[in-house]
Amino acid sequence: MTINGFGKAIGFPQINELGTIETPILLTNTLNVGKVSDALISWVIGKYSVPDCDIFSVNPIIAECNDSYLNDIQARAIGKEHVFHALHSASSGAVEEGVVGAGVGVSAFEFKSGIGSASRTVTLDGEHYTLGVLSLPNFGRREELFIDGVPVGRMLRDYEKEPASPDEGSIVIVIGTDIPLSHRQLARIARRASFGIARTGGTCHNGSGEFAIAFSTANRIPDDPKRVFLNEQRLNDAHSAINEVFRATIEATEESILCALFSAKTVIGRKRHRRVALPIHEVTFIIRAVDMQQTV
Amino acid sequence: MTINGFGKAIGFPQINELGTIETPILLTNTLNVGKVSDALISWVIGKYSVPDCDIFSVNPIIAECNDSYLNDIQARAIGKEHVFHALHSASSGAVEEGVVGAGVGVSAFEFKSGIGSASRTVTLDGEHYTLGVLSLPNFGRREELFIDGVPVGRMLRDYEKEPASPDEGSIVIVIGTDIPLSHRQLARIARRASFGIARTGGTCHNGSGEFAIAFSTANRIPDDPKRVFLNEQRLNDAHSAINEVFRATIEATEESILCALFSAKTVIGRKRHRRVALPIHEVTFIIRAVDMQQTV
Amino acid sequence: MTINGFGKAIGFPQINELGTIETPILLTNTLNVGKVSDALISWVIGKYSVPDCDIFSVNPIIAECNDSYLNDIQARAIGKEHVFHALHSASSGAVEEGVVGAGVGVSAFEFKSGIGSASRTVTLDGEHYTLGVLSLPNFGRREELFIDGVPVGRMLRDYEKEPASPDEGSIVIVIGTDIPLSHRQLARIARRASFGIARTGGTCHNGSGEFAIAFSTANRIPDDPKRVFLNEQRLNDAHSAINEVFRATIEATEESILCALFSAKTVIGRKRHRRVALPIHEVTFIIRAVDMQQTV
Amino acid sequence: MTINGFGKAIGFPQINELGTIETPILLTNTLNVGKVSDALISWVIGKYSVPDCDIFSVNPIIAECNDSYLNDIQARAIGKEHVFHALHSASSGAVEEGVVGAGVGVSAFEFKSGIGSASRTVTLDGEHYTLGVLSLPNFGRREELFIDGVPVGRMLRDYEKEPASPDEGSIVIVIGTDIPLSHRQLARIARRASFGIARTGGTCHNGSGEFAIAFSTANRIPDDPKRVFLNEQRLNDAHSAINEVFRATIEATEESILCALFSAKTVIGRKRHRRVALPIHEVTFIIRAVDMQQTV
Repeated sequence: MTINGFGKAIGFPQINELGTIETPILLTNTLNVGKVSDALISWVIGKYSVPDCDIFSVNPIIAECNDSYLNDIQARAIGKEHVFHALHSASSGAVEEGVVGAGVGVSAFEFKSGIGSASRTVTLDGEHYTLGVLSLPNFGRREELFIDGVPVGRMLRDYEKEPASPDEGSIVIVIGTDIPLSHRQLARIARRASFGIARTGGTCHNGSGEFAIAFSTANRIPDDPKRVFLNEQRLNDAHSAINEVFRATIEATEESILCALFSAKTVIGRKRHRRVALPIHEVTFIIRAVDMQQTV
Repeated sequence: MTINGFGKAIGFPQINELGTIETPILLTNTLNVGKVSDALISWVIGKYSVPDCDIFSVNPIIAECNDSYLNDIQARAIGKEHVFHALHSASSGAVEEGVVGAGVGVSAFEFKSGIGSASRTVTLDGEHYTLGVLSLPNFGRREELFIDGVPVGRMLRDYEKEPASPDEGSIVIVIGTDIPLSHRQLARIARRASFGIARTGGTCHNGSGEFAIAFSTANRIPDDPKRVFLNEQRLNDAHSAINEVFRATIEATEESILCALFSAKTVIGRKRHRRVALPIHEVTFIIRAVDMQQTV
Repeated sequence: MTINGFGKAIGFPQINELGTIETPILLTNTLNVGKVSDALISWVIGKYSVPDCDIFSVNPIIAECNDSYLNDIQARAIGKEHVFHALHSASSGAVEEGVVGAGVGVSAFEFKSGIGSASRTVTLDGEHYTLGVLSLPNFGRREELFIDGVPVGRMLRDYEKEPASPDEGSIVIVIGTDIPLSHRQLARIARRASFGIARTGGTCHNGSGEFAIAFSTANRIPDDPKRVFLNEQRLNDAHSAINEVFRATIEATEESILCALFSAKTVIGRKRHRRVALPIHEVTFIIRAVDMQQTV
Repeated sequence: MTINGFGKAIGFPQINELGTIETPILLTNTLNVGKVSDALISWVIGKYSVPDCDIFSVNPIIAECNDSYLNDIQARAIGKEHVFHALHSASSGAVEEGVVGAGVGVSAFEFKSGIGSASRTVTLDGEHYTLGVLSLPNFGRREELFIDGVPVGRMLRDYEKEPASPDEGSIVIVIGTDIPLSHRQLARIARRASFGIARTGGTCHNGSGEFAIAFSTANRIPDDPKRVFLNEQRLNDAHSAINEVFRATIEATEESILCALFSAKTVIGRKRHRRVALPIHEVTFIIRAVDMQQTV
């Protein structure tokens, strides 16, 4: 799902056509999509190709943010070995947040950003399901930032401000869930991501590449061209539970963006460009003060 | 699925969002969509509304062609009683073709057209399934017509030709099947309809309102907001059978357009405008001659 | 531009294809689209049809909200005379807001809503341009409402609360401007409207019909089929000014929704359903208290 | 414009958002998109980056076909030097057709295919304009081929037939013109390409990656972020000339596919897979025979 298409993601048309994801989803910077995509193809071939059943078609899924303020982006420093290492070390469990991976060079609201994640549980028919969001926020001007409905950005307008950089923002949002949802329903979920962005103050600038992708692990699609029919379960759109899922998506998207900000550290990059971390102490003070007032 | 959007159909956005059809699909002329839509709402309320569970939302599905060459379209002569009669007399069994219903005023390739239908059977996992197409063709210049790959239109260019009328064409294609298909797959099917149109010589003029809608009766969606999950069956995209379904769609679309032409009769309409039927004898002769040559 | 397609609007496919609007844009309730559409066609024919140049094609543009909580929607009480009266009395100047027109029966955040409007000026190349938004908000639960970033809804959760009504929300957003913009750019503008909705707390429920339409009056398109080429002016996407236009859209959308709430009065409708107006005094108090704290 | 999205093209989302093409359009095979995309970025940086105005964002446009029947596709044999050589040797003038470039490994209708091109001139307001199509057809079963409306494929069903290969087809269609057209109009043009494919017998198989891209050179978009407004010329949709442009697109698409077949030579590839060229002598004989009959 494209929110604003000023971006270079690869792999989306085939997902829209066939409703399936064939590879891990990788995040990198704008000019590295080609190299990372090629490395991912090598990894798939190395891992799954067997002599008499060669792999001739791979749909790599890569999304990107532009980190050229801190990173020497033209160098395209990501090599096949980094991609292989990332794929090899992927594991279940808690998501590493902050200044890691594709998050090393990104900024949001003119603060240092990174990888953020958040999740919600939804109870459906007595079972607990989880919806998780991983985001890579790289957009926004300082004064636009809202945290939990408080215009924190306006109050921190001049906090250790660097010279203005151009409006080259973007955000990648990956939504994963074990709720049984069809392709059409996943597209509905992905469209809700923009409501989570908007709550943090994002305005989807012209130069912003904003992509959201949603997948469900509930219905495993067998890689078996001999099976004629598949049986799948999906949520009933007519049941009010779908609104819980929409709300979970919006909240987890908003929270994941804030987590990216709260877990990032100040970074000094190329040409001594400096991007300061969100001053958590000051932010906490501002929000507490507002909340205290609100509960009076 | 919109092929060319110069048209006034109503009801499509909600189908794309929710994947369900709530009402019968009605076909009429361009200026009657409002009246027919209102009559359909009255019919639904009359039939299904009960005192303590009122119907507040109905998504009528109406598509249209412009029949203003033969019909006094501004008069909007269709009343609620005609719509009710059509809904009341709907039955299973063979489809009435030719100069009936919304087909009374339409023309295709500057011949009289009407309602056409065709179907194909597809065998999947040992079971027989049917895919049927009903079309209302109202497009094309005489010289564009191909029948079974033979440029019949060029050869009949001057056959009882009326003065040229403007490029106000359109076509509505309704595809129904009992093959288990998801919303995404039905959209893939609907996109194939344009290949069937193209085979008859259609070029999708600027002024053409071309809409295709595909539905499956395989998975009945219960009108029960208490059910949390639904179980559905669908064709496996990775199985080659989907190509049979695509081919069935294209062939049945092409054939249904030709059936509309072959079953229509010459009609004289408003202002003594005359639209001549396809001269079946001449067409048969032309095609036989070509076929004979081809099999030499 | 469809945000969530649970809606019955008519006229959008042709706008997307041809980039032009042929008629006034009318707003009504869900079950009245057919009647209003037919009345609009009558008005166009009566006004513009001349003996030798009949009008055979009209693309009426109607959007709708479901006002069945307050209104006996099945009655479809709008007649041709009301539509003609509305078209006849349309004038330039200040927009009537609140409980008028299609706004009579709508609710937002479980408060009485109505018609709202707001605008922003943008200076481009030394000239002043205006972007105005008219909205008809009919969505949201009480606790979701944010006003200027303050979670007012949570604090007014129990204020004169009626029994919960179902999630049958929707919103129509009409964006008009004299900024020179192409069809593609207007679609970009319309996509920003959802960011304005999100700022008020909207979560785009399942049952929500959310449509945004944007038009520009800068390039008048002559109704002259003899002109081969048109010359048009448009904003340069590469100039940073487009971000000002995006921001204007989001702000005016948010403000127009709030204006609909602030200008509405308490209404008692069918079956003595009561929808209370936003208590402006309380809201002002809450926001002032928060603001005071924030500026400390 | 995606016709069937089983494909790995890169660069399309940004074109749809911004309406501009920043790089040459390169064609390659399925697994080489990453490498070619990276090489194109290197070429753009090498050519256009200057010390104080670095390039941080490039939207490479690459489309692909799967040539794994003849080519050892996993080897990804295209290096940066081949891409640079192709870009360096690009010139105006006649297009090289047949077994060249991305066309070396492709097949259509189980005959050897390659690069094909065709064009039409359209006279608008007394001026001559050109619309050209370059295609890379790689789809279809033998018996589906139509040439000028003659079912040649059925008659050549068993001509030097190789064992069946899987339905891994695709086609890339690039449409260039000097007719002044807006982004919306170019999308209309691109949608017509499928009508040209259909005329050759293409049915858009499941596994087919079908992409069409259309561009106009009429309005040069200055790379100048200081210019606020642009003045552009475009065809008037209300003028009947747009139908001439549609017809030119469909005809040139059909002809370019046939040119790819007629200009290709028999090729023996990996594992001694052999793909025979269309037997031009036999085809000419068949068509002449049919034509002779038709003109009787």
